[in-house]
Amino acid sequence: MIGRARRSEELGETLLPKRLALPIFASDPLSSVAYATQEILLVLTLGGLAYLHFTPWIAAAVVALMAVVVLSYRQVVHAYPSGGGSYEVASTNLGPSAGLVVAASLLVDYVMTVAVSIASGVDNIISAMPDLAGHRRALAIGFVALLTAMNLRGVRESGRLFAAPTYLFVGGVLIMCGTGLLRFLMGDAPVAATAQYGIEPVPGEANLAGFALLMLVLRAFSSGCTALTGVEAISNGVPAFRKPKPKNAATTLSAMGLIAVAMFVGVTTLAIVAKVHITDDSCRLTGLADCTGYTQRTVIAQLASAVFGGENTLGFYYIQAATALVLVLAANTAFNGFPLLASILAQHRYLPRQMHNRGDRLAFSNGIVALAVAAGLLLWVYKANVTSLIHLYILGVFTSFTLSQAGMVRHWNRELRVVTGPARRHRIHVSRAINGVGSCITGLVLVIVLATKFTQGAWLAVVAAVVLWVMMRGIRRHYDSISAELTATDPRSELVPPSRVLAIVLVSTVHKPTLRALAYARAFKPDRLEALTVAVDRGEAVRLREQWERLDVDVPLKIIDSPYREITRPVVEYVRSIRRESPRDVVAVFIPEYVVGHWWENLLHNQSALWLKNRLLFTPGVMVTSVPWQLSSSVRADRPAARAPGSVRRGEPAAPRPPYQGRS
Amino acid sequence: MIGRARRSEELGETLLPKRLALPIFASDPLSSVAYATQEILLVLTLGGLAYLHFTPWIAAAVVALMAVVVLSYRQVVHAYPSGGGSYEVASTNLGPSAGLVVAASLLVDYVMTVAVSIASGVDNIISAMPDLAGHRRALAIGFVALLTAMNLRGVRESGRLFAAPTYLFVGGVLIMCGTGLLRFLMGDAPVAATAQYGIEPVPGEANLAGFALLMLVLRAFSSGCTALTGVEAISNGVPAFRKPKPKNAATTLSAMGLIAVAMFVGVTTLAIVAKVHITDDSCRLTGLADCTGYTQRTVIAQLASAVFGGENTLGFYYIQAATALVLVLAANTAFNGFPLLASILAQHRYLPRQMHNRGDRLAFSNGIVALAVAAGLLLWVYKANVTSLIHLYILGVFTSFTLSQAGMVRHWNRELRVVTGPARRHRIHVSRAINGVGSCITGLVLVIVLATKFTQGAWLAVVAAVVLWVMMRGIRRHYDSISAELTATDPRSELVPPSRVLAIVLVSTVHKPTLRALAYARAFKPDRLEALTVAVDRGEAVRLREQWERLDVDVPLKIIDSPYREITRPVVEYVRSIRRESPRDVVAVFIPEYVVGHWWENLLHNQSALWLKNRLLFTPGVMVTSVPWQLSSSVRADRPAARAPGSVRRGEPAAPRPPYQGRS
Repeated sequence: MIGRARRSEELGETLLPKRLALPIFASDPLSSVAYATQEILLVLTLGGLAYLHFTPWIAAAVVALMAVVVLSYRQVVHAYPSGGGSYEVASTNLGPSAGLVVAASLLVDYVMTVAVSIASGVDNIISAMPDLAGHRRALAIGFVALLTAMNLRGVRESGRLFAAPTYLFVGGVLIMCGTGLLRFLMGDAPVAATAQYGIEPVPGEANLAGFALLMLVLRAFSSGCTALTGVEAISNGVPAFRKPKPKNAATTLSAMGLIAVAMFVGVTTLAIVAKVHITDDSCRLTGLADCTGYTQRTVIAQLASAVFGGENTLGFYYIQAATALVLVLAANTAFNGFPLLASILAQHRYLPRQMHNRGDRLAFSNGIVALAVAAGLLLWVYKANVTSLIHLYILGVFTSFTLSQAGMVRHWNRELRVVTGPARRHRIHVSRAINGVGSCITGLVLVIVLATKFTQGAWLAVVAAVVLWVMMRGIRRHYDSISAELTATDPRSELVPPSRVLAIVLVSTVHKPTLRALAYARAFKPDRLEALTVAVDRGEAVRLREQWERLDVDVPLKIIDSPYREITRPVVEYVRSIRRESPRDVVAVFIPEYVVGHWWENLLHNQSALWLKNRLLFTPGVMVTSVPWQLSSSVRADRPAARAPGSVRRGEPAAPRPPYQGRS
Repeated sequence: MIGRARRSEELGETLLPKRLALPIFASDPLSSVAYATQEILLVLTLGGLAYLHFTPWIAAAVVALMAVVVLSYRQVVHAYPSGGGSYEVASTNLGPSAGLVVAASLLVDYVMTVAVSIASGVDNIISAMPDLAGHRRALAIGFVALLTAMNLRGVRESGRLFAAPTYLFVGGVLIMCGTGLLRFLMGDAPVAATAQYGIEPVPGEANLAGFALLMLVLRAFSSGCTALTGVEAISNGVPAFRKPKPKNAATTLSAMGLIAVAMFVGVTTLAIVAKVHITDDSCRLTGLADCTGYTQRTVIAQLASAVFGGENTLGFYYIQAATALVLVLAANTAFNGFPLLASILAQHRYLPRQMHNRGDRLAFSNGIVALAVAAGLLLWVYKANVTSLIHLYILGVFTSFTLSQAGMVRHWNRELRVVTGPARRHRIHVSRAINGVGSCITGLVLVIVLATKFTQGAWLAVVAAVVLWVMMRGIRRHYDSISAELTATDPRSELVPPSRVLAIVLVSTVHKPTLRALAYARAFKPDRLEALTVAVDRGEAVRLREQWERLDVDVPLKIIDSPYREITRPVVEYVRSIRRESPRDVVAVFIPEYVVGHWWENLLHNQSALWLKNRLLFTPGVMVTSVPWQLSSSVRADRPAARAPGSVRRGEPAAPRPPYQGRS
């Protein structure tokens, strides 16, 4: 289902050329054109039609911000080509705690990218096919599952698959905007179907002035900033580019910025020209007959319909299909970014080691699955509603923008201390200025977003990031303390063998597994050997003693009473008592086990051996030996070529190998 | 929550005196009075009011049947005091396959007893408090959970708790019937609230004649036979009685039969006198204003209201409370019978061994939980609707009645061959006649039930019993084949030790756990010792070799390449290759593990060791030794007095002890 397993050496083959990297990493900022304009309008129309004239100014601010961020990130890509992106920049220059803040914010935002993009994609599908309105949630979850499966196959094949729709979307939207604006210039301006409706303001939002009006405009601006999400994906994904990695990544970043600005400006202008009226609640549209049964179309859908002449035209369906497709694929940006970041965090021991394992197909499988589960959950809880989800969005992006740009300023300051040539010093001064301005502006936007969105739902994103931050620090502390405990300061002394080996063979009845365990234990020639049984039932114990005497073996049988029908505790206590008598010896416990071939056969046998082994491992100075007896069914199940499920997935090609000691 | 753990010797203390055994084992047949009459009426009123005059005849047939069954089971109790009940009788006399048919039928019926009794109990609660109608399912599941918790505490304490309500119910219903019939004799007959409504027949069920009418009457009779369910519980529960067990059990059985007949006759007579009109669909009641909003009361509720003068009287609430309580507790009959039967079946190796384990409180915990889950599922799926559930019922009871009575006839035939005294031979002839008649009559009823109920839902019960039957035979075959494989035919030859021991210590890095494993392996003085590592990453392997050389230990380090990042497979293949070279040697694999104290810590470490151990156990001639290194957190978690969860539950006081070999 996810293709054949691949050798670690094949890693180089999965690197991306620019024409594939652009759609993979840039489909998120490009696709956000599909909802950024709409989110601005949704906020402004809270006050009726009165404030729509702010739209161009807000759009201009978003475009300016986009330019600042793209320029800033070009510096990051060149300075830090290893792909840690904002996380690496902030860690290196502002310290690990600041880096973790960025990492937590980005992880949350990747999840939001998947949720919002897919929700908006489903919205556009429903705009074209209103009959599907009842299946919103199922569609969204289905797309998450589809993307997960695709990404588990590995990045390159996904890239080829994902390139076409992005280009089709960009082309389609630019043609739509061109056609629409041309018609406008020729005096035949397209008119949206909703231009005829008025909008009733929400009580309390009409006739605003002063601070209240400012807040409304800032809220609209915050919503418009969704256009900037995903810009950092390229800086996190530099290692996936072909060489020269930084240059290719920077070029892709600029191309992405230009295309995004062109599309955003085009769509926003067209929306103003065509008088698109859209509200958060269709019952505030005046002049509408049946408002409850009316499904508002997305801005893109309204524009496509107006430009191409209706909802049954080829142009309309083309735009809707391309938009829906690119939005669902935009979620793929996060499916590339999240596992990579999680893997780097795991390598730095801030996340469980498993996040750093490449799967059979060389993708970071565990990160992909974690992202899919989190996004799927959000879509389920928020019923795949874009407007609910969008409030949780962009907070993390601007946190990481601000901190990484601030980090870059420090980075350049440090460079200035060592670099001497005037030309290079000048370039650094320019870079520092760009990053300084970038940091201040994105910091300002962060404050604006926090102020206008916190009570609307953004608090949840803040809480999630804080929880992640605390958890990651805890995980790091855990790994550090274990590593400190396990490091051998004096290896020679650790190698001193115990003075004697006392072997115990656990016995319940005399059958082949028991006899084999006894034979193997004797082969080791321990200093002392005895058989041990727990007498849960007196009669059984007497029968066993008789069998044992008939066996006539030179190993004494020790019987422990257990009136409370326990097995584990008496054995553990007996072993402890031996250790207390001779603390310098080691106790070897031999447990006969029979191995069955099918999982359901295990249901038919008691799990006592497993529990007992588990508890014995907690006892110092003990080793536990399983002596297996393979039943015929196990031989059938054990084909030599068979691989343990997931065994490949646990390999790690380029990092500290998982120790055998990691146990459950 | 379920009380302190109890020693195996305390088992004797949990035996029951008659006055407690009656309510425990007989609450099911006694409580069925609450729905048996109603189910007869529900079938008859399919044809309107025209066929209600059949009621007394059907009731008389049920009473006669009850007498036959009680008399028959008195013979069983005396002849087979060990508590296998119908299962034991059928197995012994008709062969194991017939016994298993009975066992499967009874297991299904125990589940149905819980489901039907609780559903009916909830119905009676809703009759008194119609506001709860929306919470039917939640109430039912809640009661199942309550009974489960009570039974996990153990049988005797439950008995005392359950005795009072049964007696209160019997007293209440008898007083109600007495009062009602006295009023009738004095010319002041009670009149049910529904007497005023007519009943419209279901299309196609009116004006029946000949075969169709016969089928309707037989269907009504089948439904009335629910009064007989649970009679066999006493014969299955003989071991729970005080001595002399058979005599006490037979006396209790007779007492139960008399009380049940008195109540059933009383309620049915009263229902005829008071003209209770009840239908499967309230919209077939004529003369009712708003039929959809109308909740029909149970027959018991209508009678209580008519006799005691309304729905706000103390008498009404008393009857409803006692009925609901006894019905919920009737489910307890099954909570006593099911685990006991399952335990006997497990002892005979027809069910997983775990069913035979007594819990900390000496109850068969696993059987209790299995019953609760099955009944809860049925209540959930059928929305706790009595009429839907009742179609699945009584099939199993009559299967077991018929087969066990047939078995008893064979039993007496065999006795006749050895017994000589004329008095004893006469008694046996009488017994055989009773059982012969019983077998024929219950067999006839079984055919009637099958014919009238199969398409109504009883097919599901048949399917369930067949699946259980096949499964139990499969389990027995599995245990038999394993037992045959494990039996040592020549113990001495199995004890011959392998010629040499080759030890392999798995190494990933040089740290304390590895060094300890090495030290322990050397303490065994194996014939050959080497360290083994899997090179998932070349650089790591080179570093490890350097560390190893610095360590300067006389153990060679073997490095295996693994381009596909696997760990398990290369190790297993290496071990196999050693074994191929020297098949008479044994390979001892030492795995260093570190032990953590909290479950969540395991999430932070790879599970490679567990997988590897698991796969190695499938390899012949291998033993796997875990050498644990206890981290400080594990020491905190390992209090010596702490008991492994469920360790007590796995003990078995009176049967083949679970072998240590049973493994997962």
